[in-house]
Amino acid sequence: MTLTFTPLPKIPLIHTGDDLTDIILNSLQAAKVTLEDGDILVLAQKIVSKAEGRLVNLGSVTPSKEAIELATRSEKDPRLVELILQESRSVLRVRQGTIIVEHRLGFVCANAGIDHSNVQPGETKGVSKNFASDAEDWVLLLPENPDRSALAIRRKIKIATGNRIGVMIIDSHGRAWRLGTIGMAIGLSGLPGLVDKRGWQDLFGYRLKITIVAAADELAAAASLVMGEAAEGTPAVHIRGFPYPLREGSLKELIRPTAQDLFR
Amino acid sequence: MTLTFTPLPKIPLIHTGDDLTDIILNSLQAAKVTLEDGDILVLAQKIVSKAEGRLVNLGSVTPSKEAIELATRSEKDPRLVELILQESRSVLRVRQGTIIVEHRLGFVCANAGIDHSNVQPGETKGVSKNFASDAEDWVLLLPENPDRSALAIRRKIKIATGNRIGVMIIDSHGRAWRLGTIGMAIGLSGLPGLVDKRGWQDLFGYRLKITIVAAADELAAAASLVMGEAAEGTPAVHIRGFPYPLREGSLKELIRPTAQDLFR
Repeated sequence: MTLTFTPLPKIPLIHTGDDLTDIILNSLQAAKVTLEDGDILVLAQKIVSKAEGRLVNLGSVTPSKEAIELATRSEKDPRLVELILQESRSVLRVRQGTIIVEHRLGFVCANAGIDHSNVQPGETKGVSKNFASDAEDWVLLLPENPDRSALAIRRKIKIATGNRIGVMIIDSHGRAWRLGTIGMAIGLSGLPGLVDKRGWQDLFGYRLKITIVAAADELAAAASLVMGEAAEGTPAVHIRGFPYPLREGSLKELIRPTAQDLFR
Repeated sequence: MTLTFTPLPKIPLIHTGDDLTDIILNSLQAAKVTLEDGDILVLAQKIVSKAEGRLVNLGSVTPSKEAIELATRSEKDPRLVELILQESRSVLRVRQGTIIVEHRLGFVCANAGIDHSNVQPGETKGVSKNFASDAEDWVLLLPENPDRSALAIRRKIKIATGNRIGVMIIDSHGRAWRLGTIGMAIGLSGLPGLVDKRGWQDLFGYRLKITIVAAADELAAAASLVMGEAAEGTPAVHIRGFPYPLREGSLKELIRPTAQDLFR
């Protein structure tokens, strides 16, 4: 069966409080896609974060002593570093322009996934602003609980359409050892993070050895590719043909426990 | 535009010396897929390695002193460890059952990508055997030069069909920090490894910051998902709808130089 990734058209600029489910259902209609059980919807972190009001103006942030010190080492804005620290469990590596952290959500990423691009003042409607600021000062944090965000959208879609689908929220992450970013799951609901094929047999009846597949991340990667990340502005993707059964799932499945991690 | 991944049916068991291009063209016909310029074909490492005779019987391997020592630490067969060392530039980490190496091709992976599954004696037709052995003793090395393998197939397809396509060879790799394997490019020809979007502007005219996308790996991930890795046996995938122009490309683009790698 063919696995398809269809970017969804006509997603408007998202503001705090927008109902992403309504917006996606309209977009599916515009794309002439009728949802089916087993489909998966993938949303870029940015639109989920914006809908949830995760914008912060740097003018409202007072950097701690630790943030100021780290800002010097990384040559970053101390206020941004303060937010990075607030969003992280620990700092793994520091170099110019980049602080690699273990995010409070468990995954390792650069700068706690805090994004400076694709934020403009018009989008901050509804965000309280009791400080002096200008457009460039807005940054966007990751959703507070992306699994929960995915679940909420999945439930609303179930109510609206009756379909049992999976919903995933993704972001672009760098990697150890390899260049370039790829899309990875940061939250999911209704699809497996991992597919465990241990005990499955190969063509000759031997048992497979290393066979826990990061299925959600494999979907996230290609979904990210069709989203693009610049002015194309297609932050939602419809997937059909996922070759495994849907089930409950969670980001936690994909996080390697620190004790098993040889590369920290 | 929808990005599609179609597993190719009716790929037979591959033996040393088989012409993969012929086999894939037959499979495309069986799948009723007519190639178009811009399409990409993805092959599992296993079938390329088998066609190239990269099978080794452990009975033919004499482990070095270093291999014997490492075999004790990793609880692996010293002869297999000898092959892992021969295929690697350096050993990064060792734990029970797993030796993480920098492969001679440049990427970091477990056990130098040497695979024990999906190899059976019937497949070793044409491989010289001047030693006592049994079926279980066969292992499969990665292709000697996967970029070159991909190029050769791409050229033959150009001659046979006239189409300008990309060809990629992939394998499943584990990752730092995250659980589960995902498909990654280990060789490519005729498509970009990375797509560099630095200088592109976001929706509001800001320049994007971190925007070098590992496009080949994003394709490899989803291709791996539709291949499956067990008895399904669909080691080739047709991709249509890649959203960037094809160009010459190489695995080297995707390898992070050691000096820039914070996690070794």
